[in-house]
Amino acid sequence: MNAVEVIRRKRDGHPLDGDDVRAFVRGYTSGAIPDYQAAAWLMAIYLRGLDGAELAALTEAMLHSGDLVDLADLDGAKIDKHSTGGVGDKISLHLAPAVAACGVRVPMISGRGLGHTGGTLDKLESIPGFAVDLPVEKFRAVLADCGLALIGQTARLAPADKKLYALRDVTGTVESIPLIAASIMSKKLAEGIDGLVLDVKCGSGAFMKTLDRARELAATLVDIGRRAGKRATALITDMDQPLGRWVGNAVEVRESLDVLEGRGEPDLVELTLALGAEMLLLGGAARTVEEGREKIAGALGDGRALAAFRRCVQLQGGRLDEIERRGWIAAEAITVDSERPGVVQAIDAEAVGHAAIRLGAGRLRKEDAIDPSQWIHLMRKVGEPVATGQTLVRFSAPRARETAHEVAALLRAAYTVEDVQPARRRLVIEVIR
Amino acid sequence: MNAVEVIRRKRDGHPLDGDDVRAFVRGYTSGAIPDYQAAAWLMAIYLRGLDGAELAALTEAMLHSGDLVDLADLDGAKIDKHSTGGVGDKISLHLAPAVAACGVRVPMISGRGLGHTGGTLDKLESIPGFAVDLPVEKFRAVLADCGLALIGQTARLAPADKKLYALRDVTGTVESIPLIAASIMSKKLAEGIDGLVLDVKCGSGAFMKTLDRARELAATLVDIGRRAGKRATALITDMDQPLGRWVGNAVEVRESLDVLEGRGEPDLVELTLALGAEMLLLGGAARTVEEGREKIAGALGDGRALAAFRRCVQLQGGRLDEIERRGWIAAEAITVDSERPGVVQAIDAEAVGHAAIRLGAGRLRKEDAIDPSQWIHLMRKVGEPVATGQTLVRFSAPRARETAHEVAALLRAAYTVEDVQPARRRLVIEVIR
Repeated sequence: MNAVEVIRRKRDGHPLDGDDVRAFVRGYTSGAIPDYQAAAWLMAIYLRGLDGAELAALTEAMLHSGDLVDLADLDGAKIDKHSTGGVGDKISLHLAPAVAACGVRVPMISGRGLGHTGGTLDKLESIPGFAVDLPVEKFRAVLADCGLALIGQTARLAPADKKLYALRDVTGTVESIPLIAASIMSKKLAEGIDGLVLDVKCGSGAFMKTLDRARELAATLVDIGRRAGKRATALITDMDQPLGRWVGNAVEVRESLDVLEGRGEPDLVELTLALGAEMLLLGGAARTVEEGREKIAGALGDGRALAAFRRCVQLQGGRLDEIERRGWIAAEAITVDSERPGVVQAIDAEAVGHAAIRLGAGRLRKEDAIDPSQWIHLMRKVGEPVATGQTLVRFSAPRARETAHEVAALLRAAYTVEDVQPARRRLVIEVIR
Repeated sequence: MNAVEVIRRKRDGHPLDGDDVRAFVRGYTSGAIPDYQAAAWLMAIYLRGLDGAELAALTEAMLHSGDLVDLADLDGAKIDKHSTGGVGDKISLHLAPAVAACGVRVPMISGRGLGHTGGTLDKLESIPGFAVDLPVEKFRAVLADCGLALIGQTARLAPADKKLYALRDVTGTVESIPLIAASIMSKKLAEGIDGLVLDVKCGSGAFMKTLDRARELAATLVDIGRRAGKRATALITDMDQPLGRWVGNAVEVRESLDVLEGRGEPDLVELTLALGAEMLLLGGAARTVEEGREKIAGALGDGRALAAFRRCVQLQGGRLDEIERRGWIAAEAITVDSERPGVVQAIDAEAVGHAAIRLGAGRLRKEDAIDPSQWIHLMRKVGEPVATGQTLVRFSAPRARETAHEVAALLRAAYTVEDVQPARRRLVIEVIR
């Protein structure tokens, strides 16, 4: 394999041989191919794209660059869910135990929040004592015991993806659908799962702002999964306003417990039923979407999902009672009130995410620390009426007055209030199997 | 200037601010911007292009990255010629003294051969003792004395170009018209010239294989020159067969001396008149092309051009008599004879260039050494008749029999002989002012 030849072929829009793609990734991971050649290659891929066979080879090479988790000795289907990232998305916390309670194992490897989006790992770490960096043997033991395990990516899982992602970050090659898809799938396929449900977010709070881009990513992800011999389904779901009413970390665990206790916000419940049903279908625990939804609703309603979650948290060292007991809402709140009567038309989810970063509840750079006690509470959501002077949104009071002003201004600008009733957006926009 | 932002803008096809382009080049030259960011940027430029203003800023930044030669204290116009590279192209050797003999100074900075193309510097170095790496003061003194000076690029001239070129070479970003044009013009504009004639080669032996690509490069070069406030004219000339009858180094000096002695090959003379006339026009030494051609023909005919060349070689330490005296044709020759009667239709110039590399007369990599005594002699050129068994081409016998077979096979395949008379190609295809 001649690295310059491979770069030139992609530059000129020709398809690459699978062996060349694999050799390039191996060479880059080992250090034989320098950063500058990989950077030129990534930009050529960004602008020329990759076809299905090239993408399968890229994903496979990244996947095989590190350890593979082998869960074959655990009985039953192992199904994971991956979300492309949004604001207020705490679905994994209650979805995984609900699916596990229905007899499908969920070995879930989650990520941290970055930019305006939150991360499941950050939310889990707001539970005092909860360990997200389990060794593989412990991960397997938790999964065997309670049907789910919730951990973070280890350094030995798909290291090629880590190295390539770090390079993409500094060379303007992040927002490429094939590169995003290969990055996601290489990590997920290393988990030892049988199938995967993908929650591809679309809208103001998502990386994919348009339905066309979301569709392209969803189809690409499903295709990579199929080529790797895994069952995969993608749901394109609405991320035009935040999910649920709370944005932060400890508050989102609390809001997720509400779902597990049978009194969750309608949008959180609806998305849990939709994603859970697809996971049960892939895992063979339901024959139809309807049956899947009923089973998930049952597990949420009778306390089985909550029990599974409690057991998982306990096994991973978390003290859930501290979240339930302690004043998880930072005491002082600042409110943003409506300046006019009307109906909420839109809540710009990306702006809410940036407000969360400003409060310390999210991070701009990977190395930033998070304050799990900070929060934003959306008192009004899209389609809800508001009178002049009524609160639209409130948030935990930051120490600096200037920060409070900035956050209030960001949140005020995120809301659009008008006289008419907004067109209703479906939460699940499309399903791609 | 945020390097990633600049990369992203170009990636997305947006025009870059001139200040950003200059800052990027400065940052890369100083080492503040790493190779991998420059590589991604170059690939984005390769695939998205640069407009005239961006290109002017890029060229200017590269030009100002090093020393500028100031020739303002020398009287008269200073005009150079640059060729984009071909096979058998020894034009500079006799063109520069012919123009100097007509009263226009020619401060010529030439390059080495690379790939299938030869380089003026390599040919000059086949003259025993000839020094191509003069300090600027000596360069100026030679130019003041005999009206021309023939040197190589110094390390301090446009170092940004050297660094960028080395990166392009290993990242598959060489064949980009804007990057080629900026590279050429940044070096030429650093020479302290008033104007420049560009010989843009087109055909099988050129980097630009099609007339469209050659036109695009020619127009780009002229535009950069204009924007930098210099007079510039481009000639698109035929490089579908080698120029003259000899390909090598010492042999090309000898063939060039033939032109200076008034008995040159018709194609060499014709191109010299065409390029020389344009140089005299730019330098104000002729009012019309016709007048320019007559003046150049006069200088070639009455020995003034030859005298200028002899003086230049002498000032730069060369011993021309050794080229003239010694057996410059390596003694033993191998001939390739025609296997059929007919007329030569085509001589693939790139293939001839590769045969020259195989003989050691050219170099594949920059670090390769050249054997100046090796040669190829085209006994038949396009349009000339040949009988079965008559020699098409001969070459200096290499030591290894295998090499001889390879070179003979390359040269045989380079020739096309058929019954009909081939369509006549014009040597000067277009002039772009």
